[in-house]
Amino acid sequence: MELWFTERQTKSLAISMRVRQNLHRERSPYQEIAVLETEQYGKLLVIDDAVMLTTADEFVYHELIAHLPMFTHGNVERAAVIGGGDGGTIRELLRHRSLQEAYLLELDERVVRVCQEYLPEVASGLSDARVRMEFGDGIKRIAEFESYFDLVVVDSTEPVGPGEVLFSREFYDLVRRSLRPGGLMVAQTESPFVNRQLMAQTREIIGGAFPETYVYLGSIPTYPSGLWSFTIGSAGPDPRQADLAAIAKMTADWPLRYYSAQVHSAALSLPPFVQEIYR
Amino acid sequence: MELWFTERQTKSLAISMRVRQNLHRERSPYQEIAVLETEQYGKLLVIDDAVMLTTADEFVYHELIAHLPMFTHGNVERAAVIGGGDGGTIRELLRHRSLQEAYLLELDERVVRVCQEYLPEVASGLSDARVRMEFGDGIKRIAEFESYFDLVVVDSTEPVGPGEVLFSREFYDLVRRSLRPGGLMVAQTESPFVNRQLMAQTREIIGGAFPETYVYLGSIPTYPSGLWSFTIGSAGPDPRQADLAAIAKMTADWPLRYYSAQVHSAALSLPPFVQEIYR
Repeated sequence: MELWFTERQTKSLAISMRVRQNLHRERSPYQEIAVLETEQYGKLLVIDDAVMLTTADEFVYHELIAHLPMFTHGNVERAAVIGGGDGGTIRELLRHRSLQEAYLLELDERVVRVCQEYLPEVASGLSDARVRMEFGDGIKRIAEFESYFDLVVVDSTEPVGPGEVLFSREFYDLVRRSLRPGGLMVAQTESPFVNRQLMAQTREIIGGAFPETYVYLGSIPTYPSGLWSFTIGSAGPDPRQADLAAIAKMTADWPLRYYSAQVHSAALSLPPFVQEIYR
Repeated sequence: MELWFTERQTKSLAISMRVRQNLHRERSPYQEIAVLETEQYGKLLVIDDAVMLTTADEFVYHELIAHLPMFTHGNVERAAVIGGGDGGTIRELLRHRSLQEAYLLELDERVVRVCQEYLPEVASGLSDARVRMEFGDGIKRIAEFESYFDLVVVDSTEPVGPGEVLFSREFYDLVRRSLRPGGLMVAQTESPFVNRQLMAQTREIIGGAFPETYVYLGSIPTYPSGLWSFTIGSAGPDPRQADLAAIAKMTADWPLRYYSAQVHSAALSLPPFVQEIYR
């Protein structure tokens, strides 16, 4: 017997992965959470039928969303992650010795608990003493901070359902207000092949709340089209001015698999068809 | 009613695209050739159940396989494409004014004819006066050239069935022999997420026939994992030494959507997990 998980990524596109076993499945107060073991891409976290991560490619997403903005700033002491209950972003942030405090603002505690049990290689950092986990409405919580964080990471789900407000101007104004001078934020902003309008809108919204925006790309096989974008809103630091020698030196001893000083620059090199989105 | 085309990309991974209509389907002496119109990715060319190209992402593949080696050499006058019956690689090669002669060595004439009829935006360049189309065994034909080409592009199908020999040492020795001094070749060499062993083997084989090899990457949503590799075998030119200012100047007037001077460098910036393949 063959078992397959299929995600309908758009109404006209689907990815299917053969399943070795179903490790866990539950309904939390907010959503359905499942962990499957696939033949192709290792363990798979599924929330409400959508691929959140696989253990074969989560390193790309988490290294890019964490290290590129961290090295753009250069000395992040306080960071917040909105969403990100799997812990992967926190795991990468914690590699930076400058980091003193990382808030995880996740709506659904069950996501964290399921990942701690079934995806410890992703979630392990959540037990670090520098991490403050808070469960509930991350937007309300971020609104309570003023000039506090150096970096806010919007590690959210799709812009539908509970994650929708994470693509609004009001939200990015709150994020901006929560940042110290010279701070920056980053959000995952979907695929330049299948979500072009959303990417344009999101950059416009972030650009309304921040003086500068920067977009970068990475290859994530289990997300629609396999090419994914991230958008930075910055009140100062410019990722193109990051200290590449410092990146090379600091990452030399880290077990990174995607991010490097070279990849930092490459990720910011947008092909013309991506630049077209913003014209 | 919904119609879906599904490709089993590996035994444990599949991509599915919703089909608006079936434009053409035939059995040639060599294989089954079909052209479908999809909702997500435009027209789709399928050969023996495998995705060859879609009109939504073929630009990535064809621009990368053509322009990166062309600009690495800098003055290609004679080129050969082995496979590539859809004409997309030829279309891109022809943009270079230095090019005087481009051989298309394709096994199956029906692929060319079907693409000329149903995918003219891809195949149109094939009627250019500089193109010499020859149908039959490309390997036997390449063996008849000695010190002739500046660039040979191996635009082949998968390394199974008729394309298998395109991944052998004997073949690359013949390609090397067909090149003029300072010439180079490039081959598509599959995905660093799902074909790691093949990539390692192919680079070893090409590295046996050529003094230097270089690997680069691009994002092609409808190929397995969405991240694709190309391997250059060079008897001289180094892609890292390409004249980026010349690339920027020449491509300024071309309607390219993926390749640029910046992307030339970015494509050569391999993430650590790709570098690991070759250790």
